Amino acid sequence: MTTPAETPFALVDRAKVERNIARLRDHLGGLGVALRPHVKTTKALEPTSMVFGGGTGPITVSTLAEAEFFADAGYTDILYAVGIAPGKLDRVARLKQRGVDLTILLDTVAQAQAVVAFAGEHGTPLPALIEIDSDGHRGGVLPGDPQLLEIARVLADGGVEVRGVMTHAGESYFAYTPQALQAAAEEERRATVEAATRLREGGHSAPVVSVGSTPTAHAARDLSGVTEVRAGNYVFFDLVMAGIGVCTVDDIALSVAATVIGHGPGASLLTDAGWMATSSDRGTSAQPVDQHLGIVTTSEGEVIEDLVMVGASQEHGVLAVRPGVERELPDLPVGTRVRILPIHACATAAQHDHYEVMAGEGEPVSQRWERVHGW
Amino acid sequence: MTTPAETPFALVDRAKVERNIARLRDHLGGLGVALRPHVKTTKALEPTSMVFGGGTGPITVSTLAEAEFFADAGYTDILYAVGIAPGKLDRVARLKQRGVDLTILLDTVAQAQAVVAFAGEHGTPLPALIEIDSDGHRGGVLPGDPQLLEIARVLADGGVEVRGVMTHAGESYFAYTPQALQAAAEEERRATVEAATRLREGGHSAPVVSVGSTPTAHAARDLSGVTEVRAGNYVFFDLVMAGIGVCTVDDIALSVAATVIGHGPGASLLTDAGWMATSSDRGTSAQPVDQHLGIVTTSEGEVIEDLVMVGASQEHGVLAVRPGVERELPDLPVGTRVRILPIHACATAAQHDHYEVMAGEGEPVSQRWERVHGW
Repeated sequence: MTTPAETPFALVDRAKVERNIARLRDHLGGLGVALRPHVKTTKALEPTSMVFGGGTGPITVSTLAEAEFFADAGYTDILYAVGIAPGKLDRVARLKQRGVDLTILLDTVAQAQAVVAFAGEHGTPLPALIEIDSDGHRGGVLPGDPQLLEIARVLADGGVEVRGVMTHAGESYFAYTPQALQAAAEEERRATVEAATRLREGGHSAPVVSVGSTPTAHAARDLSGVTEVRAGNYVFFDLVMAGIGVCTVDDIALSVAATVIGHGPGASLLTDAGWMATSSDRGTSAQPVDQHLGIVTTSEGEVIEDLVMVGASQEHGVLAVRPGVERELPDLPVGTRVRILPIHACATAAQHDHYEVMAGEGEPVSQRWERVHGW
Repeated sequence: MTTPAETPFALVDRAKVERNIARLRDHLGGLGVALRPHVKTTKALEPTSMVFGGGTGPITVSTLAEAEFFADAGYTDILYAVGIAPGKLDRVARLKQRGVDLTILLDTVAQAQAVVAFAGEHGTPLPALIEIDSDGHRGGVLPGDPQLLEIARVLADGGVEVRGVMTHAGESYFAYTPQALQAAAEEERRATVEAATRLREGGHSAPVVSVGSTPTAHAARDLSGVTEVRAGNYVFFDLVMAGIGVCTVDDIALSVAATVIGHGPGASLLTDAGWMATSSDRGTSAQPVDQHLGIVTTSEGEVIEDLVMVGASQEHGVLAVRPGVERELPDLPVGTRVRILPIHACATAAQHDHYEVMAGEGEPVSQRWERVHGW
């Protein structure tokens, strides 16, 4: 394999992936808690296997397509971390029948009733975690909400295993200081452990206490009572994570290779990488430093100071000097190759069906990692 | 085939596609100008063939992957409407060698020199259009810019056919009245015809005068001097187009089927269709009525008044009453199926590898249309 002659493509620096993986492994090892990586960012086998030193292990998925793809590759302990829709239980059951220990997630009595009805009818054990709301970000029941014990009672009465609790501290993406990140991690831990304690006092074994997000996983200083941490973005990292201080720009292992194809409106350059290649995620728009649609680097990965991707149509990217900065547009002739660092690695990666992978900066592309897609 | 039991998926109403296609066909037929549909929105064979009454015809593509996919299906007249990157000429030549009349696009002397060098070395005729800037939106040379004739001279001296001119009136997406749309269409026509006239006065035959965008294609009242119109979005339409009055919400032929999976923060509902299914395009954010991430309909396609998708994470959509409106959140129990109408059909469709297609509202899904993806 060689580095592709045509752009755009998604480029991965494997040395940075290894470094990012080692950092979180060491951190969580020091805290004595297991990692259940979320594969929704990379959706690829190779970087996930790297998390497990070349083997397989417990993973988190965001779609049943991911669960099936990883099950085909030998993964047997899978958490499907999106609230279950009753229409998906047939497919969950087929995974269980293949021998996959698939755990589902729910946070309503209605879901619990649907799961109980399905399990009773089909005789399939469907262990479930109850989603806990630790920060008002998305879904889940509050640790003190009577619904928590009601959901557990419906499950247990129907013969469904109450495997424990899970939360996602999504608000940690808006924490901008080490102190705020650490506080978010502690609140995530506290709320989840409180919920597990209530379940256990209510007679449920609830062995699993699952927390996670890339920011809180890195910020946590104490994970007492937690049995596993989920994180996924950290394998690649991105500018949203750099913006809140969880990584540096140099840690970002994913970029989109692009070619300059002309000049755009005002003092701008056009590339052949539009939103189809980068996504139109604007996740840094509310951060102290807005990175627009991404930072631009040379083809060797050196950041080109103050050059950002300020706009995009489907197959055109617009590069310009960072708004508010007074300087000349760099002279990048037609045909110049650049890279765009992602605002949101999950969204950028989702625009591609595979990654071109180099062993490290300065090395040619030597591997191709395929992504699973769809649902 | 039947309607899928699982969500999310991209749903197409074929009767609406037929209606949208017929409307533009009738309009352009009345103006006596040919249509060269842009396939970048649907990226699928079936709706493109519907444009040609079941056959094939001249098309516009945004990637060489599209060109190859449609060439495999018998399309032989293809315009690759993104400024050519020199690194892509090898692949362009392979399409030419297959017998495809592929036209490339450029707007700089540097590109012209690269094309001439390649054509000379490989003996491949590479007819080119010169991109004209008709509204300062993206790329192109101004009709009066001396570069126009300089580019044409470099091409002609190098034995490359100067096939004509092309523009994309991207600013028409920000025209909010019939008058403004009509003015954008006329300016697009005028600038492009002016450029073609200058080329012809300079001794180039420049037979092709290509204009297009979904808004201007529908708004044009006179296309004198224009030889072809490009439009692609109109096959599906979307809320951006409805917002500028080019279509109605009822014309939108694409939606994303989703299932309610619980309650979100505040008075909101969660679905299993996040940005992975809808994209995070915010194209109506600067329009008079912001549709956020999409309007919500029932599973039968009836708009649920004032319910919009206000937020998304990767596999979660958040539905809430339109900000600023005082009313109760509709009672949509867990398991309820809804649909999300797209903000930007090109971006929403890009999140899917195929469409589930129903003959019309009330009919079950009876076809599956595959999309081409990648570059």
